[in-house]
Amino acid sequence: MTLRDYIRTIPDYPKPGIMFRDITTLLANGGALREAADSLASYYRDSAIDKVAVVESRGFLVGGIVAYLIGAGLVIIRKKGKLPYATYSMEYSLEYGTDSIEMHQDAIAPGERVMLHDDLLATGGTMAAAAGLVERSGGTIVSASFLVELSFLRGRNVLAQAGVADVHALIDYTGEE
Amino acid sequence: MTLRDYIRTIPDYPKPGIMFRDITTLLANGGALREAADSLASYYRDSAIDKVAVVESRGFLVGGIVAYLIGAGLVIIRKKGKLPYATYSMEYSLEYGTDSIEMHQDAIAPGERVMLHDDLLATGGTMAAAAGLVERSGGTIVSASFLVELSFLRGRNVLAQAGVADVHALIDYTGEE
Repeated sequence: MTLRDYIRTIPDYPKPGIMFRDITTLLANGGALREAADSLASYYRDSAIDKVAVVESRGFLVGGIVAYLIGAGLVIIRKKGKLPYATYSMEYSLEYGTDSIEMHQDAIAPGERVMLHDDLLATGGTMAAAAGLVERSGGTIVSASFLVELSFLRGRNVLAQAGVADVHALIDYTGEE
Repeated sequence: MTLRDYIRTIPDYPKPGIMFRDITTLLANGGALREAADSLASYYRDSAIDKVAVVESRGFLVGGIVAYLIGAGLVIIRKKGKLPYATYSMEYSLEYGTDSIEMHQDAIAPGERVMLHDDLLATGGTMAAAAGLVERSGGTIVSASFLVELSFLRGRNVLAQAGVADVHALIDYTGEE
């Protein structure tokens, strides 16, 4: 089996026409979880990453393991109002309206090399905002990583515009197959 | 330095009189993150854990690393309405009103040995509900683990009543010191 075989596709969730890629079936398998984390860590092993910045909340799951494996610190990016100390905030667009994410101002020191991580790259809006938080801190964005990419939504273009030069995903869906 | 020294205490957050124990400063330090995860994993190394069940969302951070290190699968417990497949649900009391958490019905097979994990044990209400979800699945609860315990709130008593025989925490605050 490949990692892709552990993803469960749920048709018409959360609404008609959407093929939802459910990573919980991959995570629940110890062997698949290990392979996914090892594969991401091996890609970043020689990148001298200081901090892995993970996006709430599914990004926390495998992002923490990768930080551990490459010896980096772990920085969390959360929805508005959930972090207890002084934060930077970035707004991003949703289908209807806007939302915002925050990061502690002292989480990343100027010049630190940062890898961003979330579970899934779709349109790239959330991750572009996360990249903005890292830039605001003076960190250097080395790469953004994902378990799953929906490349037909072209999120990489949005990330390139947000200053993310490298994007690495383990599993790609090129369409609603 | 000990692990406790990496915790940031924020007085009067989220409201007057509360000393908030902020784990983000521990996570952001690669060495402290490694020591915390290694210490938890070493406690469970010989416990034949099949699944580590982690509570949204801070429980995802170090719980994922421990699952990886002990070769277990990772099961996520989330707030209501966030999981895409068929779920079990458990309600629990908040200071005002109630909330509920959910777990996929197929996440844990009957007889599997489960370690529960969250970042912090306070009154124990959320973790007791999480234990209820594992029992509903037919899993065997081996233990519940935490980075931080506020033992003056006596959450262990609540967990014992919920069928959690063993509780393990790395850092204990015995009062609002």
